[in-house]
Amino acid sequence: MRESELLAHIASRSADLSGRGPIVVGPGDDAAVLRLDGQTLITVDHLVAGRHFDPRSATIDQIARKSIARSVSDIAAMAGTPICGLATGCLPDGFLHADQLFDRMAHWSRHFGCPLVGGDIAISEGPLVLTVTVLGRANSQRGPVLRSDARAGDVVFVTGRIGGSLDSGRHLSFQPRFADATWLADRFGQGLGAMIDLSDGLGRDAGRIAAASGVRLELQASLLPLHADAGDWQAAVAEGEDYELLFTARAGVKIPENCPDSGVAISRIGSVVSGAGCTILDAAGIAVDVGQLGWDHGS
Amino acid sequence: MRESELLAHIASRSADLSGRGPIVVGPGDDAAVLRLDGQTLITVDHLVAGRHFDPRSATIDQIARKSIARSVSDIAAMAGTPICGLATGCLPDGFLHADQLFDRMAHWSRHFGCPLVGGDIAISEGPLVLTVTVLGRANSQRGPVLRSDARAGDVVFVTGRIGGSLDSGRHLSFQPRFADATWLADRFGQGLGAMIDLSDGLGRDAGRIAAASGVRLELQASLLPLHADAGDWQAAVAEGEDYELLFTARAGVKIPENCPDSGVAISRIGSVVSGAGCTILDAAGIAVDVGQLGWDHGS
Repeated sequence: MRESELLAHIASRSADLSGRGPIVVGPGDDAAVLRLDGQTLITVDHLVAGRHFDPRSATIDQIARKSIARSVSDIAAMAGTPICGLATGCLPDGFLHADQLFDRMAHWSRHFGCPLVGGDIAISEGPLVLTVTVLGRANSQRGPVLRSDARAGDVVFVTGRIGGSLDSGRHLSFQPRFADATWLADRFGQGLGAMIDLSDGLGRDAGRIAAASGVRLELQASLLPLHADAGDWQAAVAEGEDYELLFTARAGVKIPENCPDSGVAISRIGSVVSGAGCTILDAAGIAVDVGQLGWDHGS
Repeated sequence: MRESELLAHIASRSADLSGRGPIVVGPGDDAAVLRLDGQTLITVDHLVAGRHFDPRSATIDQIARKSIARSVSDIAAMAGTPICGLATGCLPDGFLHADQLFDRMAHWSRHFGCPLVGGDIAISEGPLVLTVTVLGRANSQRGPVLRSDARAGDVVFVTGRIGGSLDSGRHLSFQPRFADATWLADRFGQGLGAMIDLSDGLGRDAGRIAAASGVRLELQASLLPLHADAGDWQAAVAEGEDYELLFTARAGVKIPENCPDSGVAISRIGSVVSGAGCTILDAAGIAVDVGQLGWDHGS
């Protein structure tokens, strides 16, 4: 299928988007036209065959889902609500599943509340490369929840369970926690501190909150909610792709053990103190520096 | 350089962006935070080594410039003004120029008025793949100028000169016409009809206005403003990457022969009639169907 036919096909599947909510003009022109107000969030992420999924085993539907869910998870990490998205696909020459792939990307983007209003297609000699830009709306009460808002005295929490995401295949089926993040922001407002989604491993991502906030995160290994198949805690905090939320809350804020609507667990795993970096206290009482552990796509 | 170091380096060069104009929070968090009002335009484009430039001859600065300018040209085609952008780079394993490339992308995005507020980096076994998302503001008087607003009776114009863009290297140095488009929208408002930028060849792009507007464009070969090195008009209208503006205006609207500020030529090249498709009348008076001529990236 030629690029022009494929783009026309994609646009035709999205003809109903124009005039819906903030979307004034959907796909098919040189740019989409949106009417946005309040604070708008925007993020973009890659999905590269051989790096972010195994093209020999992942299905087209799983690839499409993960490409959208990764960016939606970034909006969740700000406690935002997805609005719309744009996608690009750089397809390997001779790729036979372009139409199915964009069909499933259209499906999952609508599923997560961010229908695709634009995109671009190219062909290359390389692997499949998808990028997904997602726009979101910041929480109207709390505003965006940044990485830089942790303070000494805060308590540290994580949603769900962590570890073993790649071997188990959970990295292809995770649920971006934007509904839970919205509930937290609605319920606790300024009682929330900093937040990030766990894409590169708890160690590295906790280190990012620490660096952005100018504080130290002290976590306890015994409190980490590990998946049964995650191995030991050292492996779990160094592995990426959990897409759970790591956040802090002011001391005294009563964060429940589960998000009421979803039932997703919320675990207290440590505290914020003055200093820098992130340490995890192991069973022997030894503090392990974990702020640099984790997955670095470029390494 | 590792991805995390490169991203940190990029964010550090953009630390001045937060709090500037519509940018509330710039790069470095899970998402950028923007405060947008009116009508917002958004578009994304690819730049793929071996498809959109020759990696053996194009400089890093030219690659960076073109990656930004392509998306800015889409904002120009709506008569919008660039606000900010996001970029992704999927780099070939062992690519040595990542820092310089992102430095020049930061430079050119600022140059064109759309500083980068976010991005992502990945490594692959394939060629260099860049994507650039650009947000723009629609013209406050005219609103966005769509492809679908041509009417029978309109006159058809093109800015600058066309043809020979690839062989001459102009595809690496073109000036996106957003200032000229803004001048046209400010000056003529609803007197403007449809507009598109010439990325895939005048024939194909004129056919897109015709299809979106439900009209026929009748152009005259003798009126086409060809570059001296463009070859014959058939070659010029089939070649892509001119990035000039093709637009229509209502009959009686007095479009000048140059944009006053830039001096860019504006040429009347035909008219809009009822029907479908795009024809060019050659010197012998024969109408040639050109609506399908042009560059199809997927073909």
